[in-house]
Parts: sequence; C-alpha cells; structure tokens
Amino acid sequence: MEILCDGLDLSNAILIVSKATTSKTPNSILEGIKIKAKEDKLELSATDAELSIITTIKAEVYKEGEVVVPGNFFGNYLKRLTNEQIKLTLVDNQLKVSYNDSEGFIQIYNVNEFPKIPQIENQDYFEIQQNLFKQLINKSTFAVATDDSRPILKGVLLEVNKTTINAVALDGYRMAVVKKQISNSNIEKSIIVPQKTLKEITNLLQDSEDKIKIYVSDNFLTVNINGVIVVSRLLDGQFADYKSIIPTEFSTFCVVNKEQFESTLERVSLIARFDKNNIVKFDIKENNVLITSNGDIGNIKENLPANLKGNDLVIAFNSRYFADILKVTQEEFVQIELNTSFSPCVVKPIEGDEYIYLILPVRIANY
Amino acid sequence: MEILCDGLDLSNAILIVSKATTSKTPNSILEGIKIKAKEDKLELSATDAELSIITTIKAEVYKEGEVVVPGNFFGNYLKRLTNEQIKLTLVDNQLKVSYNDSEGFIQIYNVNEFPKIPQIENQDYFEIQQNLFKQLINKSTFAVATDDSRPILKGVLLEVNKTTINAVALDGYRMAVVKKQISNSNIEKSIIVPQKTLKEITNLLQDSEDKIKIYVSDNFLTVNINGVIVVSRLLDGQFADYKSIIPTEFSTFCVVNKEQFESTLERVSLIARFDKNNIVKFDIKENNVLITSNGDIGNIKENLPANLKGNDLVIAFNSRYFADILKVTQEEFVQIELNTSFSPCVVKPIEGDEYIYLILPVRIANY
Repeated sequence: MEILCDGLDLSNAILIVSKATTSKTPNSILEGIKIKAKEDKLELSATDAELSIITTIKAEVYKEGEVVVPGNFFGNYLKRLTNEQIKLTLVDNQLKVSYNDSEGFIQIYNVNEFPKIPQIENQDYFEIQQNLFKQLINKSTFAVATDDSRPILKGVLLEVNKTTINAVALDGYRMAVVKKQISNSNIEKSIIVPQKTLKEITNLLQDSEDKIKIYVSDNFLTVNINGVIVVSRLLDGQFADYKSIIPTEFSTFCVVNKEQFESTLERVSLIARFDKNNIVKFDIKENNVLITSNGDIGNIKENLPANLKGNDLVIAFNSRYFADILKVTQEEFVQIELNTSFSPCVVKPIEGDEYIYLILPVRIANY
Repeated sequence: MEILCDGLDLSNAILIVSKATTSKTPNSILEGIKIKAKEDKLELSATDAELSIITTIKAEVYKEGEVVVPGNFFGNYLKRLTNEQIKLTLVDNQLKVSYNDSEGFIQIYNVNEFPKIPQIENQDYFEIQQNLFKQLINKSTFAVATDDSRPILKGVLLEVNKTTINAVALDGYRMAVVKKQISNSNIEKSIIVPQKTLKEITNLLQDSEDKIKIYVSDNFLTVNINGVIVVSRLLDGQFADYKSIIPTEFSTFCVVNKEQFESTLERVSLIARFDKNNIVKFDIKENNVLITSNGDIGNIKENLPANLKGNDLVIAFNSRYFADILKVTQEEFVQIELNTSFSPCVVKPIEGDEYIYLILPVRIANY
C-alpha cells in the first residue's frame, strides 16, 4: 500500500470510525482501524462486533492494499497532522507515515484477523428525516435499563409500520414510547437495537429534513448517513408487552408549564440528591402542585401552578425520572395524568401523540 | 438574622468563597460558609485552614446576625435562584430561604465553631499589576513538587525585593524561576506560599494593569482582589538553595521556534506516552534538532530547524517537562542552553531575564 491524502480528511475519518473501536475485549484487533486503499479512495472501517462504522475519503493511490492500525494511537497522531499532506506506505510490516521531512513507523495488526463487516444487500428499508430519527432516539433511549438482569431491555424496540415508527424503552420503573412519521417503507417489522449503537447513530445525524434510508435485515440495522455507513447488530429476544402497561383511564389530569416544572423539580430534588434517595412528594390540589422533599440537610417546599381536573392526589416519585423526561421535551406545557398514589402516572404532550412517558410512583410512609 | 438580597449577587459570592471550603477533613465546619449580616451588607467567608476567602454583597438587613451554612448544598441551591429576590431568616436554628411563594429550611452549623480568619493589620506590603502577578504565578507553579516527601517544595518561593519579585518552584527534576516588576514595596523578604492557594488567587486575578496590594506578615499573605480578600497561610521551612543549581556556563546554544517545537514534541512524545515513559531523544547538530522516540507501538522522527552555536550534542529528556514550559511561554522563539548529556539544560527567552527554566536530562542506554 502506498497513498497520499489530506491530513484533515484522514483525521476526521479516523475520528468517525474510532467510535466503533473497543479496547474492552481480549480481542485486541477490535481496537484497530482498517485502512483499505483502492482506486482513488481510502476506506476506513472499525467494529466492536456489535457496532461497525465505515467511511471513505479521497486519496492518490500509488499502490493498492490494506492495513489495520492501532486506532487510539493512530487517531492521536493524525489529529496533530491536520495541516499536512500525509503519505502512508506499507514497509516491512510497519506503516510508514511521512509528512514534511519527518516520519513515523507504526506497528500494524494482521489484516486477516480483522472481522468481516456485514454488507447491505437488497435488504428491506424505510426512509425517515434525519432530524426526526434523531428526536426518536433522543426522546426514548434514556429510559433503557442500565443493569444486566434483562439484557433485552438495554435495547430500544423499534416498531416499523407503513407510515410510522415507534421507539419503546423501559427499565421496570419508567417507560418511553415515541412515535415519528416514516415514508417509502416496504417493511412492517419489530426490531430491538442496542442503545449504545443508537447513540452513536444520533451523533452522526444532522438537524436536517433530508431523508435517510434505514435498512433492516434479520440480524442487522444499516444506515448510510451522509456517506458514513453504520451497521448495528440487533438484539435477539422477546421485548416486554409494553402496551398492556399503559393505563387507559385516569382520574387526575394536570397541565403544568414545562420550564417551571423543570426548575422547581431541580431545586426540590437537591435535598433528595444530598440524601442519596431521589424522592419528592407531589400534593396536587386547587390548581397547584406543592412539591416537597425532606432530608437530613433540610427541606424545600415549592408551589407549581397547574391546570387541574379530577381528583386531588398525594403521590411520590423518584425525581430523576421526571427530570429525564423534561430534558428531552420541547413543548411549553406538558400533561400529567394519574390515578392513585400507587398506580403509574403518564406524561404526554397536551396535543398529539408524539410521546407517552410512564413513571411508577414510590410508596412512602406518610402521605 | 433577617435579610433580603439579590439571588444572583448571593450566588456569585457563594461561588467565590466556596473555593476555600473543604470536605476533606474530619472537621465538618470547614465545609461551611459563614454569612454575617451587618449594617447594609452580607459578608460571606470560608476557610480550609490554609486558604481563606472573604467577600461582601449589598443586602437589606432587617435584623443583624450570622450563620454557617453547608457550603456545597447552599451553593447548589442558590445557583438555581439567580432570578429571584432571596429572603434569609434565622428560624429555630435553621436558615429559612424564601423566594416567590416557595421556601427551604436548611440545617446550619454552630457559628462558634467556625475558625477565626486572620485580618490585615498594618502589615508590610508591595504593589504589583494584576496581570503581572497572574503571569508570575502561572509561569512558575507548574514546577512545584507533587509528592509529599519534601512538603516545602509543594510551595512557591516568593523573593520580594524593592523593585522586583522572583517566584521559584522546583521538584528535583526541573525548576522555574520567574521575575516581575513590583512597586511601592516596603519589604524585602522571602516567603513560601502553597501552590494551591496561589492557584485560587490567579483564578480571581484579571488581565488588567491595575495594581493590587499584597500584604505579607510572618505567617500569612493577604491580597484584596477587586473586593475579594484572600488570605493564605505561608509554609514554614527552608527552601532549596536554587541559585547554586543554575549552571553559569554552557557549550551548546540552540534557538528554536516555540510553536514548531511544541507541536513536534507533542507528536514525538505520543510514542513515549503510549509506552508510559516520556523519554524523547534530541540529536542537536547542523542547525537541526532531530527529535525521536521509540516504543512498542512504533517510532517517530521529526526534524526541528534550529539556530545553533557551539558543540553538537545528543541528550534525552522527559518530554513533559518541556511541554509544561512551552505551554506557559508566549514568545515566538526560545533559547535552549546545554552542556553535556548528563548536565541540566536551561530554557530562557532570547532577550531579557523574565524566566529561567531548568530541566535535568534522562540517562539512556545508547546515545
């Protein structure tokens, strides 16, 4: 292999694919980045066995070939050479990096040990606007389980229909269900995608209304985002029957200003945070929610104006579950629907069905 | 105590004094912030026994008095109330914080347990421009010792003369000596100030030519920076005889471009960093410094153009010591002066005597 390319192009490409490298396995080649020189291009790829990323840059290729370089070191080296023209040459089983009148020699991995990355081949797909897919992921992934007791819940259920997609995440204490429009869908299928790979996908997505194609096969989801191909392995198993968890009737309806709610909750839960529980109490009556917390360090009581219908109610929650929801909610107002002190509460937009969040209350001694 | 004040003023004042709180001692009152209401002012103060900070804000004082609040919690609470008018009232041994129609009650410390902070009283002082004092500290403190084997070396020696001040820091492997102009000095004295308190002082200093007064007593340094009073305990003991360490004659003189040197060194030392030593080799000859490093992951060789006088030389260094110096150096060029592969090297400006840095070389097997 012998090529000449722009240092900035190469550094940016390494930065992108390096998200799929891992040093957390005994298989050290997964820390590597594969560089393949062919025709007038360099293809860079990396995989951690669950997530794979591939991208391409222009290069003058004098001699085709491929190498696998240590990802972390190579990325650190190249990001300090963004103003240079870089020559890469395979010399005696080392990669020679030449620039100006200086040079480095880097140990390389055995290219045959690098895993094969699955390719898109006539798979089913749907189309979605980049910004909508980004919102779909950001508004749901925070609710995935973080412990390993049910690995399937570390993924997000994607229900692909003809015209819509639902993203569902839950951890046993709260749940997020988010819906977005799709188009040109030739599939109706439910898949479970690891939260980690969805996060890497959102980092690549732009706030644009341009559509991207998302390919779905039995074991993989593949997406081409502005020339970067991301392949995610799917999780195998049965997701929770989430629809049966959502209550269909409520007896207390409560509309609050989202920003007021968020800042009130932030202050009140400070007490809870210092006490290392996160319990805040809601006393809902007379168009007001009195939100309180008690701890060793003191107590805080704040009044949140609300538009109320239905029954008065006293109920307690882990404040973090509300904070997570409010962080990804843009509307001026949100609607909270409740039944009893022991039954799940639901947070919705006041119009439309873009999302439903569900939170289980905490039982406390004295209401 | 009963007062009304602006939330933003109070929050900013807490942020400033909280730098002197500590939770790393068994004496939990040192985590507290003392708030004293008197006349039309609130005085806030904190101390960790080595560093003390005092500042004052305007307030409507209905009832004078003083309390000590838990610093970390109170700061977190108040920084979320910067848009509010805050009422503080001492009620039943708790501090009541009222705003809007909400309120918090905070547990307080016994105010009698709060340490007395030493006051400025007819002490000797000198004057220095804020920006010069900031540079003096920033250009020297990085060289203090980080281990506890000689605690005195965790401080910076300040030699105050009639018209100049020298700051000296050293750790046994490298040394920094920095000189700045002072004025109105009525002292000639050497003191040793803990690096930690000097760092907090620089954070408060502005890049202004306005002069500040620095008071020196036997055990304390006190400075009033734009209304914030900082008191630092001095270290007690004998500093190293630093002047005898600086060589007076050199046989190799080498002028290099500071930015080129810095970026070359950054890349070459990547190898060294991955190998967890930091050794880079300098081969000085023919108006060039060939800087190289070798490691398991590969090797890098870069050529740095230099203006050379005197003997050729091969010498090795811990690259971090050069990196630390170059980070705080603003000039376009620096002068490096050397003798043999085993004797200390000196880094200076090409004109003037603002600083002298000294670095010991590393002995390596094959030159």
